[in-house]
Amino acid sequence: MNKLLNCVFLGIFVGIISPLFSKPALVMQSDFGTADGEVAVMVGVAHNVDEDLAIYHITHDIPKFNIWEAGYKLWMTAPYWRNDTVFVSVVDPGVGTKRRSVVLKTKNGQYFVSPDNGSLSLVAEAFGIEGVREIDESVNRRKGSEESHTFHGRDVYSYTGARLAAGVITFEGVGPLLKPEVLKIDSPAANLSKDSVTGFIPYIDKHFGNTWSNIELEMFNGLNPKTGERFDVTIKKGDKVVFNREVPYFDTFGEVKIGQPVIFINSRLFVSIALRQGHFAKAHNIESGPEWTISFSRK
Amino acid sequence: MNKLLNCVFLGIFVGIISPLFSKPALVMQSDFGTADGEVAVMVGVAHNVDEDLAIYHITHDIPKFNIWEAGYKLWMTAPYWRNDTVFVSVVDPGVGTKRRSVVLKTKNGQYFVSPDNGSLSLVAEAFGIEGVREIDESVNRRKGSEESHTFHGRDVYSYTGARLAAGVITFEGVGPLLKPEVLKIDSPAANLSKDSVTGFIPYIDKHFGNTWSNIELEMFNGLNPKTGERFDVTIKKGDKVVFNREVPYFDTFGEVKIGQPVIFINSRLFVSIALRQGHFAKAHNIESGPEWTISFSRK
Amino acid sequence: MNKLLNCVFLGIFVGIISPLFSKPALVMQSDFGTADGEVAVMVGVAHNVDEDLAIYHITHDIPKFNIWEAGYKLWMTAPYWRNDTVFVSVVDPGVGTKRRSVVLKTKNGQYFVSPDNGSLSLVAEAFGIEGVREIDESVNRRKGSEESHTFHGRDVYSYTGARLAAGVITFEGVGPLLKPEVLKIDSPAANLSKDSVTGFIPYIDKHFGNTWSNIELEMFNGLNPKTGERFDVTIKKGDKVVFNREVPYFDTFGEVKIGQPVIFINSRLFVSIALRQGHFAKAHNIESGPEWTISFSRK
Repeated sequence: MNKLLNCVFLGIFVGIISPLFSKPALVMQSDFGTADGEVAVMVGVAHNVDEDLAIYHITHDIPKFNIWEAGYKLWMTAPYWRNDTVFVSVVDPGVGTKRRSVVLKTKNGQYFVSPDNGSLSLVAEAFGIEGVREIDESVNRRKGSEESHTFHGRDVYSYTGARLAAGVITFEGVGPLLKPEVLKIDSPAANLSKDSVTGFIPYIDKHFGNTWSNIELEMFNGLNPKTGERFDVTIKKGDKVVFNREVPYFDTFGEVKIGQPVIFINSRLFVSIALRQGHFAKAHNIESGPEWTISFSRK
Repeated sequence: MNKLLNCVFLGIFVGIISPLFSKPALVMQSDFGTADGEVAVMVGVAHNVDEDLAIYHITHDIPKFNIWEAGYKLWMTAPYWRNDTVFVSVVDPGVGTKRRSVVLKTKNGQYFVSPDNGSLSLVAEAFGIEGVREIDESVNRRKGSEESHTFHGRDVYSYTGARLAAGVITFEGVGPLLKPEVLKIDSPAANLSKDSVTGFIPYIDKHFGNTWSNIELEMFNGLNPKTGERFDVTIKKGDKVVFNREVPYFDTFGEVKIGQPVIFINSRLFVSIALRQGHFAKAHNIESGPEWTISFSRK
Repeated sequence: MNKLLNCVFLGIFVGIISPLFSKPALVMQSDFGTADGEVAVMVGVAHNVDEDLAIYHITHDIPKFNIWEAGYKLWMTAPYWRNDTVFVSVVDPGVGTKRRSVVLKTKNGQYFVSPDNGSLSLVAEAFGIEGVREIDESVNRRKGSEESHTFHGRDVYSYTGARLAAGVITFEGVGPLLKPEVLKIDSPAANLSKDSVTGFIPYIDKHFGNTWSNIELEMFNGLNPKTGERFDVTIKKGDKVVFNREVPYFDTFGEVKIGQPVIFINSRLFVSIALRQGHFAKAHNIESGPEWTISFSRK
């Protein structure tokens, strides 16, 4: 009886302490889509490394070969994940060529496994570089995959990310330490002047069409905007004006009529523009990227 | 040796009892799509609350702002999940406006975290209301999210659902008890007359195009239908006849030729109509909603 | 103190041995899409069988009713999963008719739960048949589902697969042993002649458009191809030539200009053809299937 009780207490105790042994999550993204089963192959490889790994996904619908968006999505989702999370990002137009395969450790403790092709530019800048290591493929490559040159997501990135998350290797075990830098993609900074803020369009929410800027709420507040105030919004691609109109500023979409544009602060606290229950970007042929500038001017 | 054996027994014992400590599943749905990574943000938030939570998804491809479908999908999937499951539903056209954020506990023991905008109408009616609580955002809101007004799926719903599933809060901890009711969406009841049954089209299976009615097998059996019998099927939008044709009734699609329509009992035991290996709804421009009526008449 | 230490050691011990008790993964695929929530229903059913099951997905975007692709995807993903994995495949145009529901155990120890409609042809041939059992629906069918004839993915396949993965039943518990064979889909073998290799197109990667052949690298090496060498590529549908052009052979896409075709060895080591950063199959109206032949001839 006493023994049984002991057992029960131990069971409860183990239940309590077992989370302490939880492994970091492995979080994947790619431009592979999910129709072809290649993502399932990457998951299978990771699951083979350690069947207790918790595997999640950002998205696999990054536009093909779009390194800018790969980096932007890492930057916009990583802050919501734990500080030990291992991210695997495979947008890799140069697969099989000389670009390096690296693991970036950021100052917040997260790991990013990716080709060093610009995908890591934004997270390195935003979270700080703790260290960058080149993946040593003599150790951290799936056995038997040597003759394949076109699927490093499976053979190198998922495999290495899983080994890191599972504790099979430490950061040191990834491979040789490189200079603390990653390939950088430049983008224009936002600017506050007396009567306006100017920036660029880093991202368009594909589903709802909301058009984001890189202008932070804090900078926008330099204009002391009032709820309901109308601003002159100008969007240009290079020198060409694509959109120019007065748009009101509100906290939420619900303050304007269905189909009307509204300036709002997006969920990451950047100034953005939307069409209520419509798709602003499609309606006005707006796209994203460093060449797309946007300004909000007081009238 | 004896000690080692003890250890082994305890290990096995723990293996046996640990499921008793399993946490309820957290099951999400939304109209966000999966391309933008917002779902991954909601998952990250939940995983941050408790890294051992098992997180699943109904779908994130609910048509944008379609509250009726949000409710229908909860109703049609919830019965296949355990009685302690926590559902998070985010179809929220009124985000940031005055609609309430609630948790509905149904009489079967399941929890539904959602804006109270009609999404909960069907599950409340079908499973019964055990209690409705308003989410107290002073407690159950992600720290640091106060300035964001457009992503309650992340800041309130996923966060609260995860806390409930993880046992961080009990149902009482959600917030103040409300009157036991949720915002209702009315829909017409099905009817049996001497020679026909009439109802409406609550849902069209998007992928296969099968068109469902709200007429239950039990009511249809009131006509004593025979396998192979042909019925006169009329589908109207309001007063306008959109489809009228004789269609045979069979147990399975395989009984008619490819491309031919068939009346069948769907997987939830409602009378439905399909085109074998075709898309009935697209072929005949049928949509769903309370204004779409359907009748099956004996000839 | 001593006791506490004991507890800690036991906790660690359990942490170490608990993976030994890990259950096989349950891996699903279907042609259901993910918009309608039917996949979530299958997951709910499996989770109800055992809430500790780890459930993964190959894809649910197999073209509707395409049994060939169902089989091809099982064959192309299964090798990356553990030898105890339970696969559930639901591409089932004959649901409710007389086709048998079976579990195939292959010689590598994996299980495949599927209608016996050809979906299992490739894995049976590639991995070898350990045994085939018919699912006994009097035991291995979800209680209360008897009146539904159109969703065996939910009522039979997911339920049986989950029971098998959870250890509720052994392979013997599936149902009666059948002759060790499954319904076969024939496809032409690849051929090496003095100056060319010929085969067919079993699959097109939907997302990137890469067109695969069934010609293995090993056979192709019989031609002693040199990197950069140009081959005459001919693709026919039946007797009709659909594509004929000289294409260079390289290790990686990066060796040709953007928009140019390239012969490469795909990630499963089969000879393939792609358009760098383009969609070869769409550009040239190529599809897959046994009637699509492809040849590579030395000039």
